[in-house]
Amino acid sequence: MANEPLRMGVIGVGFMGAYHARIWSQLPNTELVAIADPDQAVGRKLADELGCSYLPDAAALLAQGDIDAVSIVTPDRHHVEPAVAAARAGKHILLEKPMAHTAEAAEQIAAAVEQAGVRLMVAHVLRFDPRYVQLREAAEPETMGEAIHLRAKRNTVRSLAQRVGANTSILFYLGVHDIDMMQWVARSEITRVFAQKVQKLSNGNEDALFALVNFANGAIGTLDYSWAWPDGLPAGYHAAFEVIGTKNAALLDVRDQGFQVITAEGPHAADTHLWPEIHGRITGDLRDELMHFAEAVRSGAPFVQDYREALSAIRVLDALAASIDQGVPVAVARP
Amino acid sequence: MANEPLRMGVIGVGFMGAYHARIWSQLPNTELVAIADPDQAVGRKLADELGCSYLPDAAALLAQGDIDAVSIVTPDRHHVEPAVAAARAGKHILLEKPMAHTAEAAEQIAAAVEQAGVRLMVAHVLRFDPRYVQLREAAEPETMGEAIHLRAKRNTVRSLAQRVGANTSILFYLGVHDIDMMQWVARSEITRVFAQKVQKLSNGNEDALFALVNFANGAIGTLDYSWAWPDGLPAGYHAAFEVIGTKNAALLDVRDQGFQVITAEGPHAADTHLWPEIHGRITGDLRDELMHFAEAVRSGAPFVQDYREALSAIRVLDALAASIDQGVPVAVARP
Amino acid sequence: MANEPLRMGVIGVGFMGAYHARIWSQLPNTELVAIADPDQAVGRKLADELGCSYLPDAAALLAQGDIDAVSIVTPDRHHVEPAVAAARAGKHILLEKPMAHTAEAAEQIAAAVEQAGVRLMVAHVLRFDPRYVQLREAAEPETMGEAIHLRAKRNTVRSLAQRVGANTSILFYLGVHDIDMMQWVARSEITRVFAQKVQKLSNGNEDALFALVNFANGAIGTLDYSWAWPDGLPAGYHAAFEVIGTKNAALLDVRDQGFQVITAEGPHAADTHLWPEIHGRITGDLRDELMHFAEAVRSGAPFVQDYREALSAIRVLDALAASIDQGVPVAVARP
Amino acid sequence: MANEPLRMGVIGVGFMGAYHARIWSQLPNTELVAIADPDQAVGRKLADELGCSYLPDAAALLAQGDIDAVSIVTPDRHHVEPAVAAARAGKHILLEKPMAHTAEAAEQIAAAVEQAGVRLMVAHVLRFDPRYVQLREAAEPETMGEAIHLRAKRNTVRSLAQRVGANTSILFYLGVHDIDMMQWVARSEITRVFAQKVQKLSNGNEDALFALVNFANGAIGTLDYSWAWPDGLPAGYHAAFEVIGTKNAALLDVRDQGFQVITAEGPHAADTHLWPEIHGRITGDLRDELMHFAEAVRSGAPFVQDYREALSAIRVLDALAASIDQGVPVAVARP
Repeated sequence: MANEPLRMGVIGVGFMGAYHARIWSQLPNTELVAIADPDQAVGRKLADELGCSYLPDAAALLAQGDIDAVSIVTPDRHHVEPAVAAARAGKHILLEKPMAHTAEAAEQIAAAVEQAGVRLMVAHVLRFDPRYVQLREAAEPETMGEAIHLRAKRNTVRSLAQRVGANTSILFYLGVHDIDMMQWVARSEITRVFAQKVQKLSNGNEDALFALVNFANGAIGTLDYSWAWPDGLPAGYHAAFEVIGTKNAALLDVRDQGFQVITAEGPHAADTHLWPEIHGRITGDLRDELMHFAEAVRSGAPFVQDYREALSAIRVLDALAASIDQGVPVAVARP
Repeated sequence: MANEPLRMGVIGVGFMGAYHARIWSQLPNTELVAIADPDQAVGRKLADELGCSYLPDAAALLAQGDIDAVSIVTPDRHHVEPAVAAARAGKHILLEKPMAHTAEAAEQIAAAVEQAGVRLMVAHVLRFDPRYVQLREAAEPETMGEAIHLRAKRNTVRSLAQRVGANTSILFYLGVHDIDMMQWVARSEITRVFAQKVQKLSNGNEDALFALVNFANGAIGTLDYSWAWPDGLPAGYHAAFEVIGTKNAALLDVRDQGFQVITAEGPHAADTHLWPEIHGRITGDLRDELMHFAEAVRSGAPFVQDYREALSAIRVLDALAASIDQGVPVAVARP
Repeated sequence: MANEPLRMGVIGVGFMGAYHARIWSQLPNTELVAIADPDQAVGRKLADELGCSYLPDAAALLAQGDIDAVSIVTPDRHHVEPAVAAARAGKHILLEKPMAHTAEAAEQIAAAVEQAGVRLMVAHVLRFDPRYVQLREAAEPETMGEAIHLRAKRNTVRSLAQRVGANTSILFYLGVHDIDMMQWVARSEITRVFAQKVQKLSNGNEDALFALVNFANGAIGTLDYSWAWPDGLPAGYHAAFEVIGTKNAALLDVRDQGFQVITAEGPHAADTHLWPEIHGRITGDLRDELMHFAEAVRSGAPFVQDYREALSAIRVLDALAASIDQGVPVAVARP
Repeated sequence: MANEPLRMGVIGVGFMGAYHARIWSQLPNTELVAIADPDQAVGRKLADELGCSYLPDAAALLAQGDIDAVSIVTPDRHHVEPAVAAARAGKHILLEKPMAHTAEAAEQIAAAVEQAGVRLMVAHVLRFDPRYVQLREAAEPETMGEAIHLRAKRNTVRSLAQRVGANTSILFYLGVHDIDMMQWVARSEITRVFAQKVQKLSNGNEDALFALVNFANGAIGTLDYSWAWPDGLPAGYHAAFEVIGTKNAALLDVRDQGFQVITAEGPHAADTHLWPEIHGRITGDLRDELMHFAEAVRSGAPFVQDYREALSAIRVLDALAASIDQGVPVAVARP
């Protein structure tokens, strides 16, 4: 297979799915064969633009023999059905995060993949961000020592919550990134959580969610999620990550990415890492993630992240939700 | 009294007490009369330098009729005795934070002050920091709306914990600043807290303490205290504060104060706000605080902070300690 | 004189003059006696607010026997007449920067002051900014070595140029600050300059002025002045200063002062150093400068800056203007 | 050619050449065939590691029929001979910046390439940096208006000058990046320059070089190059770029890339854009540049930068050197 391009399909071409489709059509070692989405106007337009087939129905796409693998980029609560169907159709799968909306649902996907013998990678894009990956490498026990405490922040503007809040949740949309990163950096799983949320705006969901977590190795962590910021927040978001070890520490603050346009009204920052589009091509972390998926499928090499790690993060999300419901600290259920 | 300098004594001339003494000797409207400290070598040397009397014993200082007011800068757990004695001696009091190590102890001080009719201000220096005060002003309900969530961070290097950790606590030394600030900014009291601490280094005390808090007005807050950072953290500390309201938001990050010296080994930042010493005089927030105390005592004007607000913060510290002991969320006890 | 407040007058109460007047009325060791300004409406209103006399004419103010010293805060090109008159009237003088609009004019002021035996300080406020002063201290030859190169930037928004551009110049308004600072930090005078300006906006004056300068000690420097930025520049200005020595280096960047308000439209930063007003009083560098003037006049101590240093900066301004006119490098004329 | 990998050779495998070789061996659409370098120990070791041939002599490499294109990464002053030879051998060329050490030398390369009909791209890596490219896009005349003034800074630590200073120059190594960027962003050529350099350290070359430049469209620019910083400068370098237009402005500051490791000694920053290596692969701007070269050669599409633009920058370098020699402003010679 090594010299043939990997033939890709994309199921779901909303905001992120369209990025997947564009990148598959741009990479030198992949070919975009078809996209599927129930919204025919959106789907046909994109297919025309990218020169691939459009199918309203995911099942029809999965039935095509000339597709090796699929991106699944459907809404957070609708991952199980297309992922199980793709596995049964023998397609390798790049599944957008979160792996699923509950640990039980994620287990169904894992079971289908294992039974079918296809490959599955959950698209945790921060695993391809040079800042986060270098932070993780800096946290090697021999240089960092043992993790003492960790902090993660992921805050965005309220117009995002107004747009997507009712269809997803602050944990699915923002939270799962840092839960995965925390466990990856600490080299230790989260065992117990306490969380609180607040809702004062009318954006169809909580405005913010704060949590304290305990790790198996004795470290503590704090999580700070919000999509309640006024829209004037430069770059539209503020993420940060810290780990303090018994020897060294590392920190990452992505509020200022170095580039700003100043108008009469104020400064406007732009993404320079996730998926900047320059010279007509999408670059950055997302392209790197998709290139990695294609290369690893073609070569048989392991993925950067085992999907069992993605599943572990979902168990923490379940515990955070339970803690909010019950008002007390809750242990993370692990098999 | 208005044209006479205010005659000051200082009880306790360790690190902070020496700053108080120096500033009283430099201000145009105050006069440093005497200092008291059990460490005779330290006390005599400073008294010689500043041209004031030295007394080993606080009681002797309080007995002097030519002293109008005193700074009390004794260790955190030893505020009650000198404060009560100063009140009984009819001296106005500037008492270093925290007001006391428990709410019960703080109540004893309050009772003594009220009985004696003297004035008491607790030295919450952030109330005089132009960054924090402007943030508080930006959080006026008419512009900010109602507070939704707040975040405070106060992190320092581990050499500080090694030096002072066993004699104080992370809450007394770092925490009380932000508890006071949070309640002042939110215009609402903290009603319930959950906290976790961690101790992996051997610095005589906890390395870090994280907490989630609930406010009477429904807002939530997160607190992030640590003195476990490696000593190479620029400027030696990292503080941050955020408030997100239903209308606007405000943030403050004091990691980078704009000024750095670069040597072959690395960057070195300096304090440009708290108590920078330039042209041989101490300036900044601390001098402003002491000027305010002197002016308000001379004029009879109210202090920027009523000591009842300082006492309110101590009640939150008590609840945080109880939550750590019990492992569950704890309500703040209020009379 | 030591225990009596210094009795002050202010000549010129525009934007900066009003700040002087307010601070003189707030300091514990000074008393604001009178203000003079040709704009009667503005002058009377301020005098009423501050409880002092108003005089339309500077000469009348200078004739008052109950005034010890004056702030002169008239437009840049009108410093000579009031400064000479004040000296002849026996008043000590705090003169806003630039000392004068030409070296020749500055010499007239110096001669008058020397003849009258009064004291003169030019109000170079950065000499009281903890960031700049600490940078200067970091540049001590024993730690920094000899200066190799220096950089200064002072950029503001175009609405400032639109408001004041025709009455002043980019060198008088912005440039003189850094010329003085460069010579003070380098411990060496500027000997030769080359400058270029550009004017594309219609703000009544040049939009920007860049220069290269040579120091007597062989170092080189670069100056970057602009008031052409769109008004959305956070905090409205961006200043920076660097010195690289044969041993260490130091840098200062004041674009981000740590505090921002975020609205739906964008971030808004505020001054936290120059003259922030908190709790109803003006604090920061400007207050410190005025306190220093009053203390030094009362005690007879030397000022932080000798006015001969301020005059030296004016000679550099003259050379910069000549270089622009002639299109070639120009030597700084020194007596 | 479209489905065959592009077969690459690399001439010169020092620091940057080794990066080229590694990336050619990692990209999905290229194959590293051979490397050539006079240093046999270095060359053989790298060839073994990457599984390609090693040849001590560039001529032998160019004689190989199974090589489509070459990277030329020889020292700055030795670009002409290998580039001309490669063109004559019919190889497409990716030539490291600067195109050549004089405009005359660059013209020789251009003539050879045109005569041979091969393709030439000069490796100006900032043309592939999402920050710089987005800044350039933000400077489109319809949104930015006409450029008024530009500023570029590129400063590094003195250990770099000690290592490479005698073999290159501050203009070849640092300067050419920003000269190209300035002309690309301003959409206007530099017509006249004035420069000054300083040398106080003993690093085999100038410590710093400052310049003022004039553009054909009336804008002015300032350049600030140094490799005299103490080695403790975080991340080892500080680059900045600004353009202020008649409408908007844009700025870029890459001192802080968001990620730092803190040790007991100080903070340590890392490259997150140029060529970070994560998961065993080189990513970032450099990989993107090489991917672009390979794709454009395979598809016949134009390069992002015409080599005539690279040549234009060399003419400015020549003028800067002449201005330093002559001590006066110098016009840029253009055919």
